[in-house]
Amino acid sequence: MGTFDPASIRVVACDIFGTTVDWRTGVADQAARIAADRGVGLDAGAFADAWRERYLPSLRRVNRGERDWVPLDTLHRESLDDLLDERGVAGAFDEAARRRLVHAWHRLPAWRDAVPGLARLRRRHVVTTLSNGGFALLTTLVKAEGLPFDCIVSAELARAYKPAPRAYLTVAELLDVDPGQVLLVAAHRWDIDGARDAGLATAFLERPLEKGPGRTADRAADVAADLAVTGFDHLADVLGC
Amino acid sequence: MGTFDPASIRVVACDIFGTTVDWRTGVADQAARIAADRGVGLDAGAFADAWRERYLPSLRRVNRGERDWVPLDTLHRESLDDLLDERGVAGAFDEAARRRLVHAWHRLPAWRDAVPGLARLRRRHVVTTLSNGGFALLTTLVKAEGLPFDCIVSAELARAYKPAPRAYLTVAELLDVDPGQVLLVAAHRWDIDGARDAGLATAFLERPLEKGPGRTADRAADVAADLAVTGFDHLADVLGC
Repeated sequence: MGTFDPASIRVVACDIFGTTVDWRTGVADQAARIAADRGVGLDAGAFADAWRERYLPSLRRVNRGERDWVPLDTLHRESLDDLLDERGVAGAFDEAARRRLVHAWHRLPAWRDAVPGLARLRRRHVVTTLSNGGFALLTTLVKAEGLPFDCIVSAELARAYKPAPRAYLTVAELLDVDPGQVLLVAAHRWDIDGARDAGLATAFLERPLEKGPGRTADRAADVAADLAVTGFDHLADVLGC
Repeated sequence: MGTFDPASIRVVACDIFGTTVDWRTGVADQAARIAADRGVGLDAGAFADAWRERYLPSLRRVNRGERDWVPLDTLHRESLDDLLDERGVAGAFDEAARRRLVHAWHRLPAWRDAVPGLARLRRRHVVTTLSNGGFALLTTLVKAEGLPFDCIVSAELARAYKPAPRAYLTVAELLDVDPGQVLLVAAHRWDIDGARDAGLATAFLERPLEKGPGRTADRAADVAADLAVTGFDHLADVLGC
């Protein structure tokens, strides 16, 4: 990590949920509306947290080969169904409500530094998504928020979820660069660890509020990355864009 | 084709070489410069034409399974090597010159209506590339010309070249829509025919100058498409964008 050279970076690959967009606020706000439409009381923040907690375990079952590849929408739907059962409110959310909830992940608010910071990074680099979200999900989300990505890369294209090495290496293959010429930007230690193990350069982007006011997000001091930054604008500063 | 309903279209998928960018001018201009650097005389327009003529036959060998999938850059390189041999100028173009020539296809000028027309189409639709060019090629080309696509879809993602049905169906799968909700825009009859056979809606975009001043491009009267338009601005008019 002492050998990191910003001039070697050609592609900036950005994690989305938590790093580029505020999934918790987005999912909680939409869940609160959908619940209110049905006259159901819901602690929407806790609901979003509980749903997100099922995310990594659900990916792992795919990456370990315990089940065939399925898109993230399918994993989200399965964990939603489980969650509603567990909370004893399954009867209050019909098929249409569940579809709306799954699609909440397609429309999430960007962190404020994302659009201006990515626009600066894009001047000198190819800037892509690299998310476990599906290709359609990412295209919809990026378009709605006006995020200035040059292209969309999803784990779906690799049929392997991060942190599987194949998910990271697919970015380098598709964009015809060496893995070390790709800088993975993420707010999560597991993602940074996966990217580093696959040979990518890494930038940890600290999002202390990602998990809401009462919970602790990953902190720079605990993550072994080539760079640690506080936002996309800061990353653009560091890379001289 | 009498049943075409513009309101059913959710995705506009655009062919690139010839339809969105002027490959002949771009390749000929760059080839003329590369030849001049080596002191070689070259009829650059005829050279670009002869190179392009080897394009469809080279794709067919892949689609018929006569060889494994290879990226378009590889096909371009092989047909370039053949062409230089055939013209007796192989010695004048070394490895570096040949790489520059292959990369000429990564930097091609957009037709004048493309950027403003696509910007209008993008307001109401997801607008994507659907080209036989590789993912890296398309990302580079689209970025350099500032073409406002929402995402990049390449035949590389299907590992099948247009006009194979799989190339067209991959757009619908990735963007999670029905094939009939995708409008394929192309200036070539073979592409329109392939898209229609795969169940996509089709718009023939006439580019009379695509093949240069002396040669005849495909004409609307000879093509069976849902729509026939004269440019991306005209397409935006027809779709009410």
